[in-house]
Amino acid sequence: MRAVDLIRKKRDSGEHTREEIDFLVSGYTRGDIPDYQMSAWLMAVWIRGMSRSELAALTEVMLYSGEVLNFSDFPGKKVDKHSTGGVGDKTSLILAPIVAAGGLTVPMISGRGLGHTGGTLDKLEAIPGFNVNLSLEQFRHVLRECGMGLIGQTAEVAPADKKIYALRDVTSTVENIGLICASIMSKKLAEGIDALVLDVKTGSGAFMKREDDAVRLAEVMVDTGKRMGKKVVALITSMDQPLGHFAGHSAEVIESVEVLSGRGPADLRDLSIELSAWMFFLGERTPSLAEGRHLAETLIATGEAKEKFKQGIALQGGDERVVDEPDRLPGARFHAEVPAEADGYIIATQCEQLGIALAMLGGGREKKEDSIDSGVALEFRKRIGDSVKKGESLATIYYNADAKLPEAKSMIAASYTIGPEPPREIPPLIRRLIGAEQS
Amino acid sequence: MRAVDLIRKKRDSGEHTREEIDFLVSGYTRGDIPDYQMSAWLMAVWIRGMSRSELAALTEVMLYSGEVLNFSDFPGKKVDKHSTGGVGDKTSLILAPIVAAGGLTVPMISGRGLGHTGGTLDKLEAIPGFNVNLSLEQFRHVLRECGMGLIGQTAEVAPADKKIYALRDVTSTVENIGLICASIMSKKLAEGIDALVLDVKTGSGAFMKREDDAVRLAEVMVDTGKRMGKKVVALITSMDQPLGHFAGHSAEVIESVEVLSGRGPADLRDLSIELSAWMFFLGERTPSLAEGRHLAETLIATGEAKEKFKQGIALQGGDERVVDEPDRLPGARFHAEVPAEADGYIIATQCEQLGIALAMLGGGREKKEDSIDSGVALEFRKRIGDSVKKGESLATIYYNADAKLPEAKSMIAASYTIGPEPPREIPPLIRRLIGAEQS
Repeated sequence: MRAVDLIRKKRDSGEHTREEIDFLVSGYTRGDIPDYQMSAWLMAVWIRGMSRSELAALTEVMLYSGEVLNFSDFPGKKVDKHSTGGVGDKTSLILAPIVAAGGLTVPMISGRGLGHTGGTLDKLEAIPGFNVNLSLEQFRHVLRECGMGLIGQTAEVAPADKKIYALRDVTSTVENIGLICASIMSKKLAEGIDALVLDVKTGSGAFMKREDDAVRLAEVMVDTGKRMGKKVVALITSMDQPLGHFAGHSAEVIESVEVLSGRGPADLRDLSIELSAWMFFLGERTPSLAEGRHLAETLIATGEAKEKFKQGIALQGGDERVVDEPDRLPGARFHAEVPAEADGYIIATQCEQLGIALAMLGGGREKKEDSIDSGVALEFRKRIGDSVKKGESLATIYYNADAKLPEAKSMIAASYTIGPEPPREIPPLIRRLIGAEQS
Repeated sequence: MRAVDLIRKKRDSGEHTREEIDFLVSGYTRGDIPDYQMSAWLMAVWIRGMSRSELAALTEVMLYSGEVLNFSDFPGKKVDKHSTGGVGDKTSLILAPIVAAGGLTVPMISGRGLGHTGGTLDKLEAIPGFNVNLSLEQFRHVLRECGMGLIGQTAEVAPADKKIYALRDVTSTVENIGLICASIMSKKLAEGIDALVLDVKTGSGAFMKREDDAVRLAEVMVDTGKRMGKKVVALITSMDQPLGHFAGHSAEVIESVEVLSGRGPADLRDLSIELSAWMFFLGERTPSLAEGRHLAETLIATGEAKEKFKQGIALQGGDERVVDEPDRLPGARFHAEVPAEADGYIIATQCEQLGIALAMLGGGREKKEDSIDSGVALEFRKRIGDSVKKGESLATIYYNADAKLPEAKSMIAASYTIGPEPPREIPPLIRRLIGAEQS
């Protein structure tokens, strides 16, 4: 088998066998196949696409390029959730304690934020002392103790994905549904889970701006997971506006605690309950989705979920007092309002721009190397459908450095479309469910 | 400007500006842009294609990546011919002396053979002492002395093409009309010529098996050349069967001398006269094509063309006595016949297979590193349309080592399709003329 022949095959829209994909991906990971052949193949894949069975093979080869965790000696099912990311999406911090409190194991390997999106690891690191860089042995210990653990991708997990992703990033082969699917699923399935709930975002703040792209991605991820013997469902959810009232690292930890305390904004609470319910149902903790919802609500009402969060923070070296004393989190010294420029109703938001404005103020990364100011935040005061008066605040900016404040302010103001009439229709939070029919 | 953005643009079927192509190609040639970005871009170009103006820009940037020869101090026009290659195609060895004898300058930079095709440089090297590796200074001297010079691509000429071609070779991005055009035209225009005659082969022994692919390639080459201010025509000619009666290095030198002596096979002679005539006409040596044909025939009849060939050989260090004493060329000790397996008529040949059989016997290269046995040859005894009796020889193999003789024999036998009736139509040698209307 020769790489040059396999590149030609994909170039000419051929379908690879599992052996061919293994030859390419394993060879590349080992360093036998050079970058320049892999990048030509990736471009051919980007343009020509992959069949479902090629995709399952690619995911599997990437998965087994490294260590696959095994928690079969733990009682109960292991479940996780993956979100494709957006602005204010902090559900991981809420679900993990709820589901662990409910008795399942949640071995969550997460990523960092880049561009307009936040990352779970970065949010956790707002908590003083919190260590996301556990060894696999430490991770195992934390999971055994409290049922939840949140770490970053280690060198042992899916090294093929790491190497391929770095190449895709510099060769414009990132935004492809098959390659995105293989990257996500290989890492998630390396967690040794039985079931996975996918939250595929769509709308102005999502990577998949168009709902049909989000549906296609959801379908291939569900299919790939099922081909590999896992229970998988995907919820297509709205990222037409930020999730919850806050974006920013400390602020999102605080808002997560709010939901775990039975408070917090309705959209964030509803989505967290729904995703938890699916995890309970797929993880066979409850016989129905309705009972899953009820269990999640009960674990919040009794305070067990919040206690689990504290326990999880402490086990990963963090200061669990932040849960009850949010002032212990990094904060912002200053704040500024973004006033509405007209009377009317919020018709839409350019949600991605809101995330970029946050990053510009230091509350996110424009480049991978950037450090994050965890205290910086945006508070969103108006949602789609709300009425607004000229001069009334659309959002509050919490900041520490004002160098880019004017630019961020005008970017935020421009992100809100205000019309004279309320929008005909407010986009529902949960748009569609993919893969539930066979669950 | 960033390479990653230009890769994305081509991936998404965008059209590059001249500056963008210059950024990519010059940056790659200098080593600022890595192989893996170039190969992703080349694959995107392979699949998405290039516009005529992108192609002209690519050709120009590749051309000016190195030294562009300048013979403006020589009297008369500088002309050349390029063939896309095939089996038994030795016209360069015939044209160069005819056209130089006619008073034009022919600065010919040629290539080597690979796979089923022969290369002009390899054929010349069958002549004892012949040196194709002249410096540009020596090349200039030879051209000034006799009007013809035949050398290989030097490091100074179109280095971008050299580097890009090596990358295309290992990333399955060779067979693309735009990239082939830019590669050929950048090298040919670096010769400092005023006019170029293209011989684009089509049929079973050509790279472009289908005539419409050959026409497309011819059209883009003619267009690119004209955009750069050159006179260019392309002849689409048949490679449905070998050109002439012989393939093999010494044998092709001998057959070329036959044509230069007023003998030789009709097809080879006709094509050589036609190509020479176009060179005379485009090079403004004759006011019409018909007068160009007449001049070519006269130069053969008077012996001037043959004398020019001797002079050219001698000036490049070769033993010019081979012209009159062909036994001085490397020969073959053995020969074997390939008998027809049935009575009937030759309907078609798998011409490419004939070239591969020759290479297999040592008379060509399977890999770039292979050395060539110049004495090995095939003599084609039957042409399409000829009648044949079972057991009668289709071809004679001249060989020195018999390790692969049985395999080569059966490959040659299988290359001839024999039917009970003569073919309805014998493909004409010259199929079409591209670009002549504006000449």
